[in-house]
Amino acid sequence: MADILNIADKIFKSRLFTGTGKFSSAQVMEEAILASESELVTVALKRVDLEDEADDILSHLTSSRINLLPNTSGVRTAKEAVFAAQLSREALNTNWIKLEIHPDPRYLLPDPIETLKAAEELVKLGFVVMPYIHADPVLCKRLEDVGVQCVMPLGAPIGSNKGIKTEDFLKIIIEQSNVPVIVDAGIGAPSHAAYAMELGADAVLVNTAIAVSQNPIAMGHAFKMAVEAGRMAYLAKLAPIKERAEASSPLTSFLNEI
Amino acid sequence: MADILNIADKIFKSRLFTGTGKFSSAQVMEEAILASESELVTVALKRVDLEDEADDILSHLTSSRINLLPNTSGVRTAKEAVFAAQLSREALNTNWIKLEIHPDPRYLLPDPIETLKAAEELVKLGFVVMPYIHADPVLCKRLEDVGVQCVMPLGAPIGSNKGIKTEDFLKIIIEQSNVPVIVDAGIGAPSHAAYAMELGADAVLVNTAIAVSQNPIAMGHAFKMAVEAGRMAYLAKLAPIKERAEASSPLTSFLNEI
Amino acid sequence: MADILNIADKIFKSRLFTGTGKFSSAQVMEEAILASESELVTVALKRVDLEDEADDILSHLTSSRINLLPNTSGVRTAKEAVFAAQLSREALNTNWIKLEIHPDPRYLLPDPIETLKAAEELVKLGFVVMPYIHADPVLCKRLEDVGVQCVMPLGAPIGSNKGIKTEDFLKIIIEQSNVPVIVDAGIGAPSHAAYAMELGADAVLVNTAIAVSQNPIAMGHAFKMAVEAGRMAYLAKLAPIKERAEASSPLTSFLNEI
Amino acid sequence: MADILNIADKIFKSRLFTGTGKFSSAQVMEEAILASESELVTVALKRVDLEDEADDILSHLTSSRINLLPNTSGVRTAKEAVFAAQLSREALNTNWIKLEIHPDPRYLLPDPIETLKAAEELVKLGFVVMPYIHADPVLCKRLEDVGVQCVMPLGAPIGSNKGIKTEDFLKIIIEQSNVPVIVDAGIGAPSHAAYAMELGADAVLVNTAIAVSQNPIAMGHAFKMAVEAGRMAYLAKLAPIKERAEASSPLTSFLNEI
Repeated sequence: MADILNIADKIFKSRLFTGTGKFSSAQVMEEAILASESELVTVALKRVDLEDEADDILSHLTSSRINLLPNTSGVRTAKEAVFAAQLSREALNTNWIKLEIHPDPRYLLPDPIETLKAAEELVKLGFVVMPYIHADPVLCKRLEDVGVQCVMPLGAPIGSNKGIKTEDFLKIIIEQSNVPVIVDAGIGAPSHAAYAMELGADAVLVNTAIAVSQNPIAMGHAFKMAVEAGRMAYLAKLAPIKERAEASSPLTSFLNEI
Repeated sequence: MADILNIADKIFKSRLFTGTGKFSSAQVMEEAILASESELVTVALKRVDLEDEADDILSHLTSSRINLLPNTSGVRTAKEAVFAAQLSREALNTNWIKLEIHPDPRYLLPDPIETLKAAEELVKLGFVVMPYIHADPVLCKRLEDVGVQCVMPLGAPIGSNKGIKTEDFLKIIIEQSNVPVIVDAGIGAPSHAAYAMELGADAVLVNTAIAVSQNPIAMGHAFKMAVEAGRMAYLAKLAPIKERAEASSPLTSFLNEI
Repeated sequence: MADILNIADKIFKSRLFTGTGKFSSAQVMEEAILASESELVTVALKRVDLEDEADDILSHLTSSRINLLPNTSGVRTAKEAVFAAQLSREALNTNWIKLEIHPDPRYLLPDPIETLKAAEELVKLGFVVMPYIHADPVLCKRLEDVGVQCVMPLGAPIGSNKGIKTEDFLKIIIEQSNVPVIVDAGIGAPSHAAYAMELGADAVLVNTAIAVSQNPIAMGHAFKMAVEAGRMAYLAKLAPIKERAEASSPLTSFLNEI
Repeated sequence: MADILNIADKIFKSRLFTGTGKFSSAQVMEEAILASESELVTVALKRVDLEDEADDILSHLTSSRINLLPNTSGVRTAKEAVFAAQLSREALNTNWIKLEIHPDPRYLLPDPIETLKAAEELVKLGFVVMPYIHADPVLCKRLEDVGVQCVMPLGAPIGSNKGIKTEDFLKIIIEQSNVPVIVDAGIGAPSHAAYAMELGADAVLVNTAIAVSQNPIAMGHAFKMAVEAGRMAYLAKLAPIKERAEASSPLTSFLNEI
């Protein structure tokens, strides 16, 4: 049986979600995303010229494998988020929305209160809501209760590339969640992505680490392999951590011959 | 130009070295090693029945891709190590030797003094010497000076699956070394292997983590992908770690329309 | 000028807050708290027999130096929290309240939504509100905005003794906060408490680590010293972390004489 | 019974050893060392003017509580170390010697081979030998076997202020050692020193972190408290780390009244 990820009845073979920001060109972006084999790509509304059908970003995301995930990046309140989501539904013809509400421009950390409020309203309006949030287990359950299709807790501050700093809380979120858990923000290296998957995350979202690499195309492919490796290891079960080492090479007796 | 690893004029496409200990059967071992695509597999002399041409372990390592790397596991002194190496050269028809000298049966940690002494003698005797050692930068340089073909510092106590605990010292070793650096011992998950490669290690050796997984074949393949991902990311250069986040999605102005 | 902590116009010389749970006896509790020199001690309403003036716990907290801080532990909603706070104000004759709302009995993690709601109402009712919350920088600012007197982000899951796992977020909270930041939950060793103070926290709250030690009185005193050490180091400024070591002992020239 | 540290029949009440390098003035050095209450202070031979009885450093270390510990910093071989030790014994009238052999001027990491060789010879020459070494458990046992009076494994590269990065190996060293274990190098904050003591180290040596602080005198006192706190906590036994939290405040039943 194939190991597939299901969100709102859409099926994903890839557990690596990507983004479109910070690339040096739309061409590099397209090649890196193709190399990553990502099937879900988040796009900031702002970057899309909603009037222009030949918009540069969109024209580079035409692969039939790629699903667009508009995000509300830039909004500061639930009200703004709902407005932005509606705008994007109309313009991009999708009811999927990555909900990001961050009032502080310095660290872009998510607002738990406004996010829950917006999520509740957007679910009622028929959106597939994917909220970016702090790695807060209680908030994740509350979002699940209002009907989001997944939760997207952060691994570290967005853009920091620090990796999985919230592991103690991600473990609890993964243990408790009935919707997919997608680690979003902070992942700066393939080893971080593999680790998130080994913990049992259902997917990861990576943008900055691919986009600002010296070779985004190679990096996109590296993340693809790391995510698959981490998922495969999770399913195969990791060996336990031990305080006292046991040799993998048992002691030899041939030395008696000396 | 292909990214290949060269040790003593032998060329490796795979940067994942494996071992033969702790598998539930020789059959599982063979399949896991094949799934890992490893080209260098370490074998404890003890496990090989030197009299028996149809030895069970050896008969499962006949792929033309696989090179055997006998190890001296179980010896406690330089003298014992040299004896074991000579025995293995005769029996297995290879002058490659993984030098492991660990007087303490509890943690199997390597002895720096005896290892250097044995390395010096084995090099003179024409061996390709691959020493397993503490992540000690000065010792690594001294081993290099006596002519070893690589250094194999540990990531954590052998069999512990704790991962890369010696990173501060591995970085210095990698910076200073003129021979390949292969991280050996402690690697318990694909994310650990990827991390070692991202640091710039030339290869990793993994045994326990594959052998004791619930699915060693899948785990072997997961490690293969993780090592390739880490290497590829190292070559593509990782994004820098930042204290202050920068959004990958720039702030939007469309909200002015509200 | 003395380095004092001011919360709601009450002055504290000690930056170590303690609790009353899990001690083997009320007598041990009293001695440990006295050894810690803590001036603010949190008490679960449940443990206080509100009808009994000679309640065992209260009768052991009569030192004039000790201020009681009733907490709402056990409540699951804002409504329950407000009720509990009012009950405690009447019974214990204090308008200080440690606000803890944790719907999940397994990890006792705080609910951000209900906590903000209750905080807002309790501030209006004249309480000095000290909310226990996730290390969520945006939530901390929102609580500050509704008038809490401090924020109490967690270092790790309560009772886990894992230490300061939320450092990346605590740093942001400390940088942004206009009210005292008190690290609450997870602190399991004096080194953890010292570290929180070195980061710039204004105080720490420690309970389990003192109460379940084999020697709670010595442990109370150890925490007192560690908190003072961490605070003193914060004020004296720590030496910077360096990648390349510089010797504290410069290289000698006397060897030229050899 | 007092908790005292005994090295070569000398009794220490303080478990904080300090150094004399990098201070802005000899006066500040003296005050910081007095504030630290350190009883053993290491001095680089180079800094001492062996011809001058009124040498500036020595004239500031005249407190009867302070014992001088000359070090061999700057030597690159066992031969140089033995020469330096003999020079210092004559000049400073002490047979105590901190053995430091670091051939690489960039990271000043210790040489295991030369250190063992020098230790063996110095013990035969009647010295009290205190070797600075990598956190290598096997090397520690070999040094113990040749008669050193303690071992001084590093926590992190010297001068890096990174703290205790070698904990997995320090735990093994502490478990196995029959001589005092003194963590030397890398300690950059009081929390690091407390942590080393909590692990069971017998003492720590701190120099850079005190000397380069903006307020070395306060920092010296902070380290004194942190070391005492860590030691006290080690003796009182730390609470265990738990995966699943248990509340220190049990759930309340008073809410039934609502």
